Amino acid sequence: MRVLGIDPGLTRCGMGVVEGSIGRPLGLVDVGVVRTSAGIPVPERLVTIERGVDAWLDEHTPDAVAIERIFARSDVSTIMGTAQAAGIAMVCAARRGLPVALHTPSEVKAAVSGNGRADKAQVGAMVTRILRLDAMPKPADAADALALAITHIWRGGSQSRIEAALAASRTTPARTTSARTSVRTPVRRGGAR
Amino acid sequence: MRVLGIDPGLTRCGMGVVEGSIGRPLGLVDVGVVRTSAGIPVPERLVTIERGVDAWLDEHTPDAVAIERIFARSDVSTIMGTAQAAGIAMVCAARRGLPVALHTPSEVKAAVSGNGRADKAQVGAMVTRILRLDAMPKPADAADALALAITHIWRGGSQSRIEAALAASRTTPARTTSARTSVRTPVRRGGAR
Repeated sequence: MRVLGIDPGLTRCGMGVVEGSIGRPLGLVDVGVVRTSAGIPVPERLVTIERGVDAWLDEHTPDAVAIERIFARSDVSTIMGTAQAAGIAMVCAARRGLPVALHTPSEVKAAVSGNGRADKAQVGAMVTRILRLDAMPKPADAADALALAITHIWRGGSQSRIEAALAASRTTPARTTSARTSVRTPVRRGGAR
Repeated sequence: MRVLGIDPGLTRCGMGVVEGSIGRPLGLVDVGVVRTSAGIPVPERLVTIERGVDAWLDEHTPDAVAIERIFARSDVSTIMGTAQAAGIAMVCAARRGLPVALHTPSEVKAAVSGNGRADKAQVGAMVTRILRLDAMPKPADAADALALAITHIWRGGSQSRIEAALAASRTTPARTTSARTSVRTPVRRGGAR
């Protein structure tokens, strides 16, 4: 399966596409950042993020989108913008009928490094090893986005399946996910926009 | 000018359209609520809100959108959804090039009742008097949305003008706002969806 990981933020949204399946080598498809300038009003910054996420979805047609779960207890000065960027990313994915999963920072750290309290450098180093890259993806938001995508594949998309099952048991019709299990040749490796 | 006020929320987004200008009677154009079910995943709820806001913008073609400013210190259990609903509303407006203004709850309370600490009942009663309605708009989210629109008109859209001036002084080209100053006949009065 191909997963777009998104580390949301108003100034920088990390974007990382990873392809593969549990128990097989994972491959980097693309990594980069959607940036917005602090000099323009928030509504227009959110539109820029929307366009950026849509462009990544158009180009890479992922099977699922994994977004960092935002908590109210995070840094208060940026939390509103981060929450809103995450919301826009969710809308972009949901509009296309793509499954959206939210993973907490500690789930991501635990998945890629075995330690839920790993620091950014450790996460970046593990992402570099797991995807067999020549260098650590930069900035940290880009590496974190790849870690989110890796986490999603390794957790087997279980959250999406649980949510789909719950949704199906309610009024909403269930969605079928076309999870591709074959590992494709990475389109780009180590490429950054 | 015609203003769409939005009291954002994941379960209920209050929507209220008011028309008029400073020093002249204001008129209700429409009031209602965009609802989403707690039983469906958040990304789909946000898409429902997006469609709802777009439908109100299509129908009423406001000159500006006034949204409640969300603070991180608010109720933590619902703050993320509220912030995301506000973000979606901002995107819907900004995509159309509409000015977006954020007003705090105390600014709204002070504008419509003269008291920044007024309770919901006082705000609702003042909205009813200001717009010469037969009954208080319900639910409270709908009344709050009208209060936001009234606040925006009475504050003279000063925040939008300041932001537009600041934006023009930076790299972004300034936007012209087609503020209609004539008071039109209200399309609907006391109508709720």
